[in-house]
Amino acid sequence: MIRAGSLLLALDLAGTAVFALNGALTAVRAARLDIVGVVALGMITALGGGIIRDVILGYLPPATFRDWRYLVVAATGALVAFAWGRRLDRLAFPIEVFDALGLSFFAVTGATKALDAGLGPVQAVILGAVTGVGGGTIRDVLIGRVPTVLTSGLYAIPALVGALVTVGAAELGLRGWPAAVIAVVACFVIRMVGVRFDLNAPAPPGAPRP
Amino acid sequence: MIRAGSLLLALDLAGTAVFALNGALTAVRAARLDIVGVVALGMITALGGGIIRDVILGYLPPATFRDWRYLVVAATGALVAFAWGRRLDRLAFPIEVFDALGLSFFAVTGATKALDAGLGPVQAVILGAVTGVGGGTIRDVLIGRVPTVLTSGLYAIPALVGALVTVGAAELGLRGWPAAVIAVVACFVIRMVGVRFDLNAPAPPGAPRP
Amino acid sequence: MIRAGSLLLALDLAGTAVFALNGALTAVRAARLDIVGVVALGMITALGGGIIRDVILGYLPPATFRDWRYLVVAATGALVAFAWGRRLDRLAFPIEVFDALGLSFFAVTGATKALDAGLGPVQAVILGAVTGVGGGTIRDVLIGRVPTVLTSGLYAIPALVGALVTVGAAELGLRGWPAAVIAVVACFVIRMVGVRFDLNAPAPPGAPRP
Repeated sequence: MIRAGSLLLALDLAGTAVFALNGALTAVRAARLDIVGVVALGMITALGGGIIRDVILGYLPPATFRDWRYLVVAATGALVAFAWGRRLDRLAFPIEVFDALGLSFFAVTGATKALDAGLGPVQAVILGAVTGVGGGTIRDVLIGRVPTVLTSGLYAIPALVGALVTVGAAELGLRGWPAAVIAVVACFVIRMVGVRFDLNAPAPPGAPRP
Repeated sequence: MIRAGSLLLALDLAGTAVFALNGALTAVRAARLDIVGVVALGMITALGGGIIRDVILGYLPPATFRDWRYLVVAATGALVAFAWGRRLDRLAFPIEVFDALGLSFFAVTGATKALDAGLGPVQAVILGAVTGVGGGTIRDVLIGRVPTVLTSGLYAIPALVGALVTVGAAELGLRGWPAAVIAVVACFVIRMVGVRFDLNAPAPPGAPRP
Repeated sequence: MIRAGSLLLALDLAGTAVFALNGALTAVRAARLDIVGVVALGMITALGGGIIRDVILGYLPPATFRDWRYLVVAATGALVAFAWGRRLDRLAFPIEVFDALGLSFFAVTGATKALDAGLGPVQAVILGAVTGVGGGTIRDVLIGRVPTVLTSGLYAIPALVGALVTVGAAELGLRGWPAAVIAVVACFVIRMVGVRFDLNAPAPPGAPRP
């Protein structure tokens, strides 16, 4: 029980940290914001997915506002990214990596928390994916981009796979680190393969490619 | 009691189905997304209004995550639309019809659930309209359009009328199918008249037309 | 106790009124909407921040839907702005003033409600700022603008200062009108100085100015 709780917290804070880096670097690179904008976008990206998850599950106030560590990790990540962001030309790849890591961590924590709240397995998989893609979707909306979850075929799918592995393992009675690591790695690898080869899912029959 | 519950569920699932078709066809037509994007936009459009409604009423987790039928209906509707969407030139009218139907169904369920939760009649009318326009508003924000509720005078108004009929009937002790049908038809007809004749409400005094 | 409650309500309704004016005038000026769009954007701007605050704190349904005065004040403010909005060339300054006032009022009410809900002081400051910037952020997203909170360095900062003064005073046992007035004035003055001199926070090292 304690192990499951600390595992969940560790994954949640790791996801918060990498999404803070991602959101803040995106603010530097794509939107050319000042320090307040950079930190704001970093923190919103970091905390958005978890807040959506906790609101839907009825865990209010969300963990973000009950545990000071979330705010500290999110703010620190965003400030580190602000200081780091001087080499704009080298930011594209780290931005993708941090995004894929955050997607992976939050897909697992979202699915785990959903099971703990008594949701069914299908709903837990969906909520895991929503948690994974939530922060990045708010980030994209705020800077005026169509969210990655809509434009990239391999963004929702790895999140769903990560959540599915988590839920499947839990159904088999496996809820510790090994299952979490496998779920995170599966999600991360699929996402990075999609980024590397610019893969997308099939377009509608007869429709021109985007 | 049982009848009211099954009526509410039937209207809610009908609204979910037509908004899934609408959102997915919009994704095919307006945003040229791949299958994941199409299904994602269809499901978000289908489920968004009901999730907003249940969050505001404090019914958490929302019905979407407690009853598997919502997810199945939303996913099925989106997949049907994906397969159907090959004739892009014929999609404009079905998209409007599905949107108007979803608006109508959800205005009624939103107002009914708000009354059941003990909200006053004015608040129930507002929440009904919010439920009706919610999914389409999220859809429009995600694909980078100014939401229909802001740009089209006859979008919020039919939703308010549908919710008003529902609340008025409930105040008179009428909560069954006849009142729901009248409310749905009233909302749908007003919306479609607005679409057909491209009607808008008055612009501000002295302002140029949009 | 009663005084604190009526103070909170007065500030909340004042914030609602000025944000309704701001949102509706923005709809007239920036987006050229018709009366339904103007009233809708005014009400969403007025009510958005408080709804986000109450959802996060778990006060559901939000005050907006429990107390009819919020809806009446928001609708009245939006209608007044609609009637007033004929002199488009004179709207820019009132829009900024109403926005700064709403930011100030809601930063104080958000921080106060967060403390009442038992959040820690840091979390209360953050939630106060979120409440202050929430309505305007939704407004900007809906009309397709990058939100002011990201693009203007002196938007989040005055909200944080207003919330910080509120929380600091409460820690010292001061929770009445004097502390609230100081917090509102501090936030408002900083924001208006930022607007007047077009001040921004530092950009990332090495990044070109926006």
